[in-house]
Amino acid sequence: MGASQSHGLSEKVSQDILEYIARNGLQPGDRLPNEYELAGMLQVGRSSVREAVKLLVSRNVLVVRQGAGTFVSQKRGITEDPLGLSLIPDKHRLARDLMEVRILLEPQIAAAAAQNAAAGEVEQLEQLCAQTEQTIRAGEPHLQKDIEFHTCIARSSKNLVVPQLLPILQKAIEVFIDVTNSSLLEETIATHREITEAIRRRDAAAAHDAMYLHLIYNRRQILTR
Amino acid sequence: MGASQSHGLSEKVSQDILEYIARNGLQPGDRLPNEYELAGMLQVGRSSVREAVKLLVSRNVLVVRQGAGTFVSQKRGITEDPLGLSLIPDKHRLARDLMEVRILLEPQIAAAAAQNAAAGEVEQLEQLCAQTEQTIRAGEPHLQKDIEFHTCIARSSKNLVVPQLLPILQKAIEVFIDVTNSSLLEETIATHREITEAIRRRDAAAAHDAMYLHLIYNRRQILTR
Repeated sequence: MGASQSHGLSEKVSQDILEYIARNGLQPGDRLPNEYELAGMLQVGRSSVREAVKLLVSRNVLVVRQGAGTFVSQKRGITEDPLGLSLIPDKHRLARDLMEVRILLEPQIAAAAAQNAAAGEVEQLEQLCAQTEQTIRAGEPHLQKDIEFHTCIARSSKNLVVPQLLPILQKAIEVFIDVTNSSLLEETIATHREITEAIRRRDAAAAHDAMYLHLIYNRRQILTR
Repeated sequence: MGASQSHGLSEKVSQDILEYIARNGLQPGDRLPNEYELAGMLQVGRSSVREAVKLLVSRNVLVVRQGAGTFVSQKRGITEDPLGLSLIPDKHRLARDLMEVRILLEPQIAAAAAQNAAAGEVEQLEQLCAQTEQTIRAGEPHLQKDIEFHTCIARSSKNLVVPQLLPILQKAIEVFIDVTNSSLLEETIATHREITEAIRRRDAAAAHDAMYLHLIYNRRQILTR
């Protein structure tokens, strides 16, 4: 079998494995059947299964733990720099354009979150507000908490795509936000609370507006650097 | 050296190679210096360069042609299913939510294209309109031309992020558009022309509205299936 045919087969088998995961609702951390069982189920050879698993590991869908088996990855299939943003040379323009995309998406998403958030999600947002404030007051980097906050809002909106997309946009933007700027830090603490409060009250317009103000305040920090 | 240390080093070297590509403005199809030269420039061993190149090949940044060398990939670092959408089991909800993201982004992007498109880009849009119509009249699948049309508008907007993102959203949505529906096909031909015409006239509001109508017409097709 030629290299490209073999590549085509492992791509096909990897699709079958993805369908198996989706159909059976496997979650990050769940274990897959072993190579022997998968080969039987998908009616292909074990070497094809091995190739397909390798492909899915490289795409951060699966993770192999020696001796323990093959598991659905916590990274949910999101690869390192999936949009190829590291290839863009003008990092300042990139940061500005990433903010533009966030400004187009997130206010609407915050409004949807006000309509669709579960009670547990509102509670989680309140905890993330408190944790972000603690992290900032301790003088520690708060980017991770910031990403969790915005991603939790995206999840609460119940849109399936935006929670996958936001962490990518936020990570690529981060280098341009001056994290030592204290007015930005105070703004973050206050506005995260304001957004959370609007979502808790189910006030879609207020959630939209608070998110919008938060993002354009952040954009101004980038543009004036 | 342990496996994780070695992984860390090839990750670091791959970052250096990315910086080299960005700094020198290498474009898809351009050749990289050979392994020996890269090792010298980056002051690491050739085996580290080899590992880093492998990593960047798996991320669709580079492509190795046996005997010819290592080149910047035409795929521009965009990996297969980079948002992990194939892991989402409810494909109907997924298609709806992808359309929602497109509706939030693309009308504004079409307005920006009306302001920023170069003359050559307007010409390219006109060609893509003609090619899409030919493809449809020939009864052939026009998804590829459709993606090229929307991506060309995104490029014309001069936003750096949206052209990387749109093909991913469009490919994932495609399976839900009933391509045999003739009213949808006629709508595509007419509205693509209308959007192009508005961009040619530099009429941002008309480009915005035509794109908006195009996308909500498409969304209705998905929702009623």
